[in-house]
Amino acid sequence: MNLTGSHILSISQFDRESIDRIFDVADTMAPYAARKKATRVLEGAILGNMFFEPSTRTRVSFGCAFNLLGGSVRETTGFETSAIAKGESLYDTARVLSGYSDVICMRHPQAGSVEEFAQASRVPVINGGDGPNEHPTQALLDLYTIRRELDGKGRQIDGLRIAMIGDLKFGRTVHSLAKLLTLYKNVTLVLVAPKELAMPEPIVEMLRECGHKVTITEELSESIKSVDIVYSTRIQEERFTSKDEADLYRGRFRLNQAIYTQFCEPNTVIMHPLPRDSRMEANELDNDLNQNPNLAIFRQTDNGILVRMALFALVLDVANLVDQYSHDVRWFTGNR
Amino acid sequence: MNLTGSHILSISQFDRESIDRIFDVADTMAPYAARKKATRVLEGAILGNMFFEPSTRTRVSFGCAFNLLGGSVRETTGFETSAIAKGESLYDTARVLSGYSDVICMRHPQAGSVEEFAQASRVPVINGGDGPNEHPTQALLDLYTIRRELDGKGRQIDGLRIAMIGDLKFGRTVHSLAKLLTLYKNVTLVLVAPKELAMPEPIVEMLRECGHKVTITEELSESIKSVDIVYSTRIQEERFTSKDEADLYRGRFRLNQAIYTQFCEPNTVIMHPLPRDSRMEANELDNDLNQNPNLAIFRQTDNGILVRMALFALVLDVANLVDQYSHDVRWFTGNR
Amino acid sequence: MNLTGSHILSISQFDRESIDRIFDVADTMAPYAARKKATRVLEGAILGNMFFEPSTRTRVSFGCAFNLLGGSVRETTGFETSAIAKGESLYDTARVLSGYSDVICMRHPQAGSVEEFAQASRVPVINGGDGPNEHPTQALLDLYTIRRELDGKGRQIDGLRIAMIGDLKFGRTVHSLAKLLTLYKNVTLVLVAPKELAMPEPIVEMLRECGHKVTITEELSESIKSVDIVYSTRIQEERFTSKDEADLYRGRFRLNQAIYTQFCEPNTVIMHPLPRDSRMEANELDNDLNQNPNLAIFRQTDNGILVRMALFALVLDVANLVDQYSHDVRWFTGNR
Repeated sequence: MNLTGSHILSISQFDRESIDRIFDVADTMAPYAARKKATRVLEGAILGNMFFEPSTRTRVSFGCAFNLLGGSVRETTGFETSAIAKGESLYDTARVLSGYSDVICMRHPQAGSVEEFAQASRVPVINGGDGPNEHPTQALLDLYTIRRELDGKGRQIDGLRIAMIGDLKFGRTVHSLAKLLTLYKNVTLVLVAPKELAMPEPIVEMLRECGHKVTITEELSESIKSVDIVYSTRIQEERFTSKDEADLYRGRFRLNQAIYTQFCEPNTVIMHPLPRDSRMEANELDNDLNQNPNLAIFRQTDNGILVRMALFALVLDVANLVDQYSHDVRWFTGNR
Repeated sequence: MNLTGSHILSISQFDRESIDRIFDVADTMAPYAARKKATRVLEGAILGNMFFEPSTRTRVSFGCAFNLLGGSVRETTGFETSAIAKGESLYDTARVLSGYSDVICMRHPQAGSVEEFAQASRVPVINGGDGPNEHPTQALLDLYTIRRELDGKGRQIDGLRIAMIGDLKFGRTVHSLAKLLTLYKNVTLVLVAPKELAMPEPIVEMLRECGHKVTITEELSESIKSVDIVYSTRIQEERFTSKDEADLYRGRFRLNQAIYTQFCEPNTVIMHPLPRDSRMEANELDNDLNQNPNLAIFRQTDNGILVRMALFALVLDVANLVDQYSHDVRWFTGNR
Repeated sequence: MNLTGSHILSISQFDRESIDRIFDVADTMAPYAARKKATRVLEGAILGNMFFEPSTRTRVSFGCAFNLLGGSVRETTGFETSAIAKGESLYDTARVLSGYSDVICMRHPQAGSVEEFAQASRVPVINGGDGPNEHPTQALLDLYTIRRELDGKGRQIDGLRIAMIGDLKFGRTVHSLAKLLTLYKNVTLVLVAPKELAMPEPIVEMLRECGHKVTITEELSESIKSVDIVYSTRIQEERFTSKDEADLYRGRFRLNQAIYTQFCEPNTVIMHPLPRDSRMEANELDNDLNQNPNLAIFRQTDNGILVRMALFALVLDVANLVDQYSHDVRWFTGNR
């Protein structure tokens, strides 16, 4: 599958081959993200970073990825009253904004909005999250992280054993990651959630239909015993009807160094889509794990840069030109 | 008239020669806006894109135009509390901010504010809209669009026949466009508005004094029969005392494909300053016109990039250097 | 003291030698800030301009300084709800954001927050103001301005005579400047404030301990008679419990041209950290001083660009490479 000129809207558009291609290109971006080299391959290109809902980390990550390829970024950082309040359709907004830039990243609170926007856009659109629906680059960076972490152990995604923990009902990231795993073979999933926040049945069925082994449980310590990855999540408070309702579940599954040492296999990798809720009452991943070299949560966000660079490079068809336009990095990068 | 170092504050500062010059330079920007070429002529220059009132499209359009010339953009996207709330004068704000950048675009809710700012600024200032007062780049892009649309038919702005429709009382764009048309010869204007929202009398007089033919009517279908351009506008709800009052007029003049086919000459061009109000109760320009090749509303916003690039190039005196610093575009631009 | 890779958190981290070095490098930035030359030394580098509290001038100043060195800027312009509201720690925010950029400027309303952030950051962090605590680049640009203003008269900071006027209790800038002056010899300070807004006793003691002469007074006209610099400040209304309380002090010390002419030595330099409160009831520095060539308040903000460029160049270790990567400025810079 060739991604040149394509929209990136949903993980369901990818087959295994295209994911391999994205990840292989992401690997080639590592020296740029690590500031060993710089490139001006996209010098003159403009990213329209249209965030119609606030988001610091995803917005800045997309913008930096584009800057690292040499391009410029114009952006919006929240609903500005003007056009929408005046009755403008998404079709019009897309037609107008897509005349300005070479590629658009868009976040919008409404499910389906990014796809609707993309249909009217004259340039490729990358979904930066459309409410409860999709956030495909997060799913890709999660899977890419799994690939890299396993690779260090001579392993592949085929045969992965993973525990997903927390709010599996509202957690968009675990849904997407689970769906992506159906592209791989022989995966073992342990789903740890309060009954009321269980993984939706259709996703569980999809996993089982492709031959994966799925265990469902409400108990943390046993479930993390024989896995390669512990993927912890936050209670999605904003999806509940009240904070009180969310409080019922907050803090139910806490992982800290003592539990990790007691129950996990050596070198079990800990992931989390971030932000982790570090307040006393939640504390999904205790700060005492911060020194644990298997805590991969910040490698995940670092990998987000690589994956987003790869998507820009593929959609704009410059993956093979990045090195040709590279130049030296002249500044101090010693602490990175 | 040489624009080097000038402020762009009002359409009244232009004569016909300077408009011709701006439009000729805008023509030369087309290959850059279409990503056939890129230029780094303004590499190292900074635009201060100071929007003290939210506006996605105008703000992003100015920013992209500057990026397309190779420059960098720093911006503000709304009233930030700090300095103004602490009693700072526009004079001080201008003196400070104009020390940072090479040119400033400014939007501000208060009429006259941009001119006051410009007087204290040490760099050229371009008015991006000062409340109900002026928005000169919109007027220029409208006139430029008329020129290009007519040009395709071997016609000129002299001799133009145009219908202006909707809220002609509060619509800043139709006032400015009408004033610009006094620089041309033998224009026929059909002004279609509810009596309460009629074009202000001084503007009508100005048009008639220069020999233009002006018809005033409240009836849509007949008035669009013999014109080159139908220029539709939105009810400026935000200028009314209440939404109810605005509702009295909303949806009074609706144009759709059936009406267009029945009444308009073939190839009559449809324009609108955008955003168009696509809500059921308004629907000034029906979505069924979206496939009509004479719907020029998105060509207008595209032309906005050209006109703004031209203004930057003229004000900063690089119009003749753009090509010299051009380079190839390396990325996929196929869908544009 | 070598600043390569260092955080810039507090003025207390500097000795006289390092300040001299910063100021010498700032001097070399003048041709770039004046657009006599441009440089691409930081081409490919990214500044994370993280303003978790609104601020137009400081934010734009940092961003422009980085652009002038050829780098790109990604930024945030206020508290966005997402991560913080979801319980993310500053540690996590820092670990994530510092993976994106090469250097971070940060403003945050909470004292100590920037230092906490810096401890977790993988790249150098520059404090852009942490609430009532520190704003070191403001203090440095103030001192740099004093150096330059005195230099024009063949004088040095040693032996400086300065009057500080206004809200010396809550004014962060005067505290920082006073502390910096303890690095110099033989300084005379006249502190003019209402008794309730007097300079904190520990700072006065610090000044006296290093041999400086400190006079405390509530009377303006006599106190400005024999000084090189009059440093006026704004009543920090936002630090009072009510506007009424602030009003008690507002407008107590007004300087205008008549008072200046009557009391000041010729060529006494007037400074102010800005914004100055120009409302009738405050009017610390009257507008009739705007034509006075000794009004240095806009030279201060201009110098802010030089000092911030110098800090970036030193922290990223490119101070000696700036000229090597310079190129011509092609655009009109005549009004500057």
